[in-house]
Amino acid sequence: MTTIKDSVHDHISVDGVAADLLDTGPVQRLRRIAQLGTVKLVYPSANHTRFEHSLGVYHLADRALDSIGIGGVEAERVRAAALLHDIGHAPFSHNVEELVHRHTGLYHDDVSDLLVETEVGDVLEAHDLDPERIAGLIAGEGQYGQLVSGELGVDRMDYLVRDAHHTGVPYGTIDHERLVRELTFADGDLVLDEGNVQTAESLLMARALMTPTVYAHPVARISKAMLRRAVERLLATPDIDAGQVRRMDDYDLVSALRTEPATAEFAARYDRRDLFKRAVWAEYDDTPEALREADHEAVRELEAEIAERASVPADEVVLDVPGEPSMTESTSEVLVNGEIRRLGDHSPLVEGLRTAQKQQWRMGVYTVADATERVGKAAVDVLGLDVDGTLVSDVRRRVNASLDEFEAGAGR
Amino acid sequence: MTTIKDSVHDHISVDGVAADLLDTGPVQRLRRIAQLGTVKLVYPSANHTRFEHSLGVYHLADRALDSIGIGGVEAERVRAAALLHDIGHAPFSHNVEELVHRHTGLYHDDVSDLLVETEVGDVLEAHDLDPERIAGLIAGEGQYGQLVSGELGVDRMDYLVRDAHHTGVPYGTIDHERLVRELTFADGDLVLDEGNVQTAESLLMARALMTPTVYAHPVARISKAMLRRAVERLLATPDIDAGQVRRMDDYDLVSALRTEPATAEFAARYDRRDLFKRAVWAEYDDTPEALREADHEAVRELEAEIAERASVPADEVVLDVPGEPSMTESTSEVLVNGEIRRLGDHSPLVEGLRTAQKQQWRMGVYTVADATERVGKAAVDVLGLDVDGTLVSDVRRRVNASLDEFEAGAGR
Amino acid sequence: MTTIKDSVHDHISVDGVAADLLDTGPVQRLRRIAQLGTVKLVYPSANHTRFEHSLGVYHLADRALDSIGIGGVEAERVRAAALLHDIGHAPFSHNVEELVHRHTGLYHDDVSDLLVETEVGDVLEAHDLDPERIAGLIAGEGQYGQLVSGELGVDRMDYLVRDAHHTGVPYGTIDHERLVRELTFADGDLVLDEGNVQTAESLLMARALMTPTVYAHPVARISKAMLRRAVERLLATPDIDAGQVRRMDDYDLVSALRTEPATAEFAARYDRRDLFKRAVWAEYDDTPEALREADHEAVRELEAEIAERASVPADEVVLDVPGEPSMTESTSEVLVNGEIRRLGDHSPLVEGLRTAQKQQWRMGVYTVADATERVGKAAVDVLGLDVDGTLVSDVRRRVNASLDEFEAGAGR
Amino acid sequence: MTTIKDSVHDHISVDGVAADLLDTGPVQRLRRIAQLGTVKLVYPSANHTRFEHSLGVYHLADRALDSIGIGGVEAERVRAAALLHDIGHAPFSHNVEELVHRHTGLYHDDVSDLLVETEVGDVLEAHDLDPERIAGLIAGEGQYGQLVSGELGVDRMDYLVRDAHHTGVPYGTIDHERLVRELTFADGDLVLDEGNVQTAESLLMARALMTPTVYAHPVARISKAMLRRAVERLLATPDIDAGQVRRMDDYDLVSALRTEPATAEFAARYDRRDLFKRAVWAEYDDTPEALREADHEAVRELEAEIAERASVPADEVVLDVPGEPSMTESTSEVLVNGEIRRLGDHSPLVEGLRTAQKQQWRMGVYTVADATERVGKAAVDVLGLDVDGTLVSDVRRRVNASLDEFEAGAGR
Repeated sequence: MTTIKDSVHDHISVDGVAADLLDTGPVQRLRRIAQLGTVKLVYPSANHTRFEHSLGVYHLADRALDSIGIGGVEAERVRAAALLHDIGHAPFSHNVEELVHRHTGLYHDDVSDLLVETEVGDVLEAHDLDPERIAGLIAGEGQYGQLVSGELGVDRMDYLVRDAHHTGVPYGTIDHERLVRELTFADGDLVLDEGNVQTAESLLMARALMTPTVYAHPVARISKAMLRRAVERLLATPDIDAGQVRRMDDYDLVSALRTEPATAEFAARYDRRDLFKRAVWAEYDDTPEALREADHEAVRELEAEIAERASVPADEVVLDVPGEPSMTESTSEVLVNGEIRRLGDHSPLVEGLRTAQKQQWRMGVYTVADATERVGKAAVDVLGLDVDGTLVSDVRRRVNASLDEFEAGAGR
Repeated sequence: MTTIKDSVHDHISVDGVAADLLDTGPVQRLRRIAQLGTVKLVYPSANHTRFEHSLGVYHLADRALDSIGIGGVEAERVRAAALLHDIGHAPFSHNVEELVHRHTGLYHDDVSDLLVETEVGDVLEAHDLDPERIAGLIAGEGQYGQLVSGELGVDRMDYLVRDAHHTGVPYGTIDHERLVRELTFADGDLVLDEGNVQTAESLLMARALMTPTVYAHPVARISKAMLRRAVERLLATPDIDAGQVRRMDDYDLVSALRTEPATAEFAARYDRRDLFKRAVWAEYDDTPEALREADHEAVRELEAEIAERASVPADEVVLDVPGEPSMTESTSEVLVNGEIRRLGDHSPLVEGLRTAQKQQWRMGVYTVADATERVGKAAVDVLGLDVDGTLVSDVRRRVNASLDEFEAGAGR
Repeated sequence: MTTIKDSVHDHISVDGVAADLLDTGPVQRLRRIAQLGTVKLVYPSANHTRFEHSLGVYHLADRALDSIGIGGVEAERVRAAALLHDIGHAPFSHNVEELVHRHTGLYHDDVSDLLVETEVGDVLEAHDLDPERIAGLIAGEGQYGQLVSGELGVDRMDYLVRDAHHTGVPYGTIDHERLVRELTFADGDLVLDEGNVQTAESLLMARALMTPTVYAHPVARISKAMLRRAVERLLATPDIDAGQVRRMDDYDLVSALRTEPATAEFAARYDRRDLFKRAVWAEYDDTPEALREADHEAVRELEAEIAERASVPADEVVLDVPGEPSMTESTSEVLVNGEIRRLGDHSPLVEGLRTAQKQQWRMGVYTVADATERVGKAAVDVLGLDVDGTLVSDVRRRVNASLDEFEAGAGR
Repeated sequence: MTTIKDSVHDHISVDGVAADLLDTGPVQRLRRIAQLGTVKLVYPSANHTRFEHSLGVYHLADRALDSIGIGGVEAERVRAAALLHDIGHAPFSHNVEELVHRHTGLYHDDVSDLLVETEVGDVLEAHDLDPERIAGLIAGEGQYGQLVSGELGVDRMDYLVRDAHHTGVPYGTIDHERLVRELTFADGDLVLDEGNVQTAESLLMARALMTPTVYAHPVARISKAMLRRAVERLLATPDIDAGQVRRMDDYDLVSALRTEPATAEFAARYDRRDLFKRAVWAEYDDTPEALREADHEAVRELEAEIAERASVPADEVVLDVPGEPSMTESTSEVLVNGEIRRLGDHSPLVEGLRTAQKQQWRMGVYTVADATERVGKAAVDVLGLDVDGTLVSDVRRRVNASLDEFEAGAGR
């Protein structure tokens, strides 16, 4: 048994298949994948990695299994899945995931190939564990998959407390010890035991506060959009394809971006934290529906059009359209008086959180600092935003005035 | 300047009028008033006092004043009010406040008399501070009063983090340093500066989670109801009146309860944590409106009626009808795009939290452990609860089944 | 199984005999015994109780047993002893222990009578556990007794981290999770496993820093000396004997001190934190050996002599002579290369800590604020301190000048 | 003013010259220098950077200046020095410092060139601050230099608490708020004010515990030795010189090691955490004095000789001889009764800590896992270690048996 000291859970004991998996390349690689990608440009302490997170998820899974009373091969599979659940992440975690998906069809939890082709496969085989079933657990299938990756799963619990610990933002400080003790299975689903409506709600609230403050902080979104743009350029070169990017670590990707002439300027900007600024933004209801639903191609065309109209190079305009707000947690299930109830049906908070999420949604157009005026005006025209052309500077003022979180926590 | 080490804010520097007020009897008395009254029967670590809380409120007020840029006599008044804001608390803090109010007309923030009649008055006079204005601040009057006692005031910030620290329940862990930095005055009101809608919401969510988990935990409510009942008996004796109770500390009150024959049994029960159990409970919508609005006299009559029908001594039945749910925080004001907006109008969460609060509301009837069956049935009849008489035991089962928080954290 | 939320260890699960012991009077009484007695007059947040500490000790014992691999009746005995180990404490914990011992011959860990005569005895009997063996464990007998109360025992681990959490002084923050995992038995003794010399040293250092900063803080010593003096007066009345004091809780004692005319003035002083001040102090080497070894009677005579010479009432002079410095931890045993070694023989730190402890030792004479000059001079003469009579005020200046901790953390 | 959220100090406000320095390349580069180099291979959460540490040092310096009452240009210089004090660090912080020094003559605090040649120089000039004086402060010159980099300086305070927070090892949790408040200047030196002997000792003890547990953890030393070896190879190529390495960030260095054929194997090993193992080790007194004093060349020759005798490639043997133990903190000065005293003269602990440090010293020979037996024997012969040749395996057993910290916290 190996004991590892963790800044969040203190001592983590690793045993069985997990102890052998620790030594594999795909797991060790997670040491070099930043948990929160470019968020560290906003919260300088957020340098934690997918490796420590994966250990934390393993630890919480182990404790939950113990509390529910699950042992044997079933438990080993879950523990393996917990430790491996993030090996499909590309560098910078979620930052370039969408792009990798567009090119390879794979999301970060599509890991069937990695579970077989890499040395992870040898370890699983030596322990007589079926890679396909573990891939299923990582994808969230079945009650055990929900335990790892579901709405009430230990993945979420670990990242909330860990991200709070490392950013310094306290909102993610949930009562994870209670949550882990209160998980149970009912009718083939993972549920929280009786008396835990508020426990479930606390998880939602933590996410609802961490999202705008940390995960979707405007500066994090801008730097993520810039990074994605640079990686697109990288993929346009003959040297690197998306399958390779998917298996890189942060060092590989930074190094590739610095070396490739087409992305060297981005790399220099990134190193100096010399980021684009918002030219204009709009709330959900002020963003034309067609724009909210635009696909990648359409977005690229709009960017080009804005750039042309504003007479700036096409690469200096980023149009950032977040996905539709969703609140999957509302499907979390809790036992109430012996019946399984969906939190979304039972909790009056869920609707409020859903609306709040929509309220926080922001479409943004970003560009270099000295072109924000021009690009802002152009974007209003091209995107058909509902403001009078002469008011563009007011629109921008609103941005600067109303989003102190834009700068708060920012390290420049 | 005195420096005091605090478990929550680390070092607190006390200066000026506050340093002199520290030495007065009414402030030192707060060392012997439990911040959360009987909550320590649920969370055994919750032994913190109004004294350390008052120091914390003073500290946060001082930092907020500094951040807003207020100095001089205005600031001294606010600092004095912050340190003194709880000197009007009776023993066990809020637990017997309602009762003291019924007899004296005074709530805990009615402190005009204490600011003049006690040695606090001498200190204020020596510092040329008007007691009436300080009483006004403590009562929450004006923008400076809001800073101390308002929805966004430092009182609330301190108690949330402090109660979280001492109970071990993390939900109160707000970002108080940010809150204090973001307070400002606008149009004569205390508001949060631009970009703080989520900061304001986080305060509401913290309260929304701490309330059912800590402040209104069923066991805390039961022990509070028992304590109130015992103090009523004490006041029925010729020896003690409510004005005296108001100025007692926890030691005085416990001692009086132990000594007075009419309350000795309660005192023994309390010491052994031998509490009443719930005989029946009902949600807001299942509680007849007349009952929800019943005054003290009406409640006493119903208790007597239930006791009689169940053939138990009148003193062994407690009918606990919480006040109407309210969410005053919804009047918190936040600057949004240069305009002052009420959080309740702007935040979709507030409505959800309001509904959740109503959902958590519980009327309860408590009695000794071996009479719960009888008393439960009698209460259903007497109170006209909407359940079939034969289902009483189911009603009780629902209680026990659905409220694990009933036992969670309980120290017996 | 009962789960209790603790501010230090988060969730504590209580089971078996411990769950039944929780409900007994002697254990519930610990809720009303302040863990650190009068230290709360220095660190206002230090209001934690022997109850939560006892739960913590139970929890750590349970984890250590689990880690070592001990189960069955042996483990039940240890868990019972852990929960019960402090039921022999008088009010205010160690503050009046010496006095109770002088009158009854019992220290706080002499609990044979309480394990039999109280309802604790019934619970032990119902669980078939021998009270005598449990009393032995509480007194530290054998390797299991060392686990509870020894130099490396869980009692010490819990109080260091708990006292740090509640005072805000970080020095007690040891790595208790590691310590608990590294305990083992060798040759009938509790030892730390291989590779833990520094782990053992860290425990010593934590104590070496907590002692002068918290446990023997001058203001804590003064208020303790005053309290002891008052309780002596109480015992001189016909109403109360030391056996009764031993079974009181803090409320009983405060109430008795307030009610008894002979101690009412002390009680009022205590409530107002109106404490004696140091008239003079001396280091270990400057204190005549005869004085260091003086017994209770001799000290009382010296006090009377000083008082007379200074023309102050005898009760207003306290001569405080701490016991000989000792460092029992040096007998802690650690496995080094397969051999059991005493830490004192192996660690060069121990000698340094021992000397430091002697260096921190202070004899003190305390009196009312306006008599410090007179009493200081008289004490120098009477005690034969090695200072020129004309330098007394310098001696006192040194006190005030050199001990900022004298005021630091002080709540007045 | 910029406000940055920090995981250790919460909100840090950056102002004046510091705000402008933040934006410069040399400061932003610190975001990509791991604070503890290869320690993250032992403590997986230790991914914090020199950037957040530098912000923390700036913050504590600012608070200390405020507490001492220093303002104006003097304070601006100190704040600039605090933020810039680590810009001279090579990648992986101290790991390759010795090597860079051997080639360039520069240690990490030799930054005169960087303060002039980089854009940092422009900012300093714009603020009318003399780079030479700031370089002096960073090198620890004068009382202000001591405030930044001295034994009692804020650099040390920040790294102890920060390293504790991120490794999860609690030993570094000092009372930094108190330390910062108690600093003062006396006779041109930085000293701790009266009453702080224990405060000063606590700083020493924290270092004394963190050093073997974290900074000189065997696995950290092994990986550091391997890294140094690899960088030496890199410098032997015509492409890269030490001056360049000094200005690289971690990404540059990892990338260079991966790309350069001569170091690719090391890079692969490092990525998989496939580290050398200890073949043999010896304590201070068992290590021949000549070996303890051997210079770089001599060590390289011994390595070659051991490798040859053991028939392994020269590059697979690392001889790791730590420098002489030193305890510079003993020169810390504290005011005692109005006089400045050196802690080393006043504190009996210092001698104990000095001896302990010597006791923890370990010379080690490392090699690939399957050659430890052969290399161990060869090293005993070549180095003239005082063990019987036939006992080598016992020597190694001692290693493995006695150093559980060898594995504790290790992520494999």
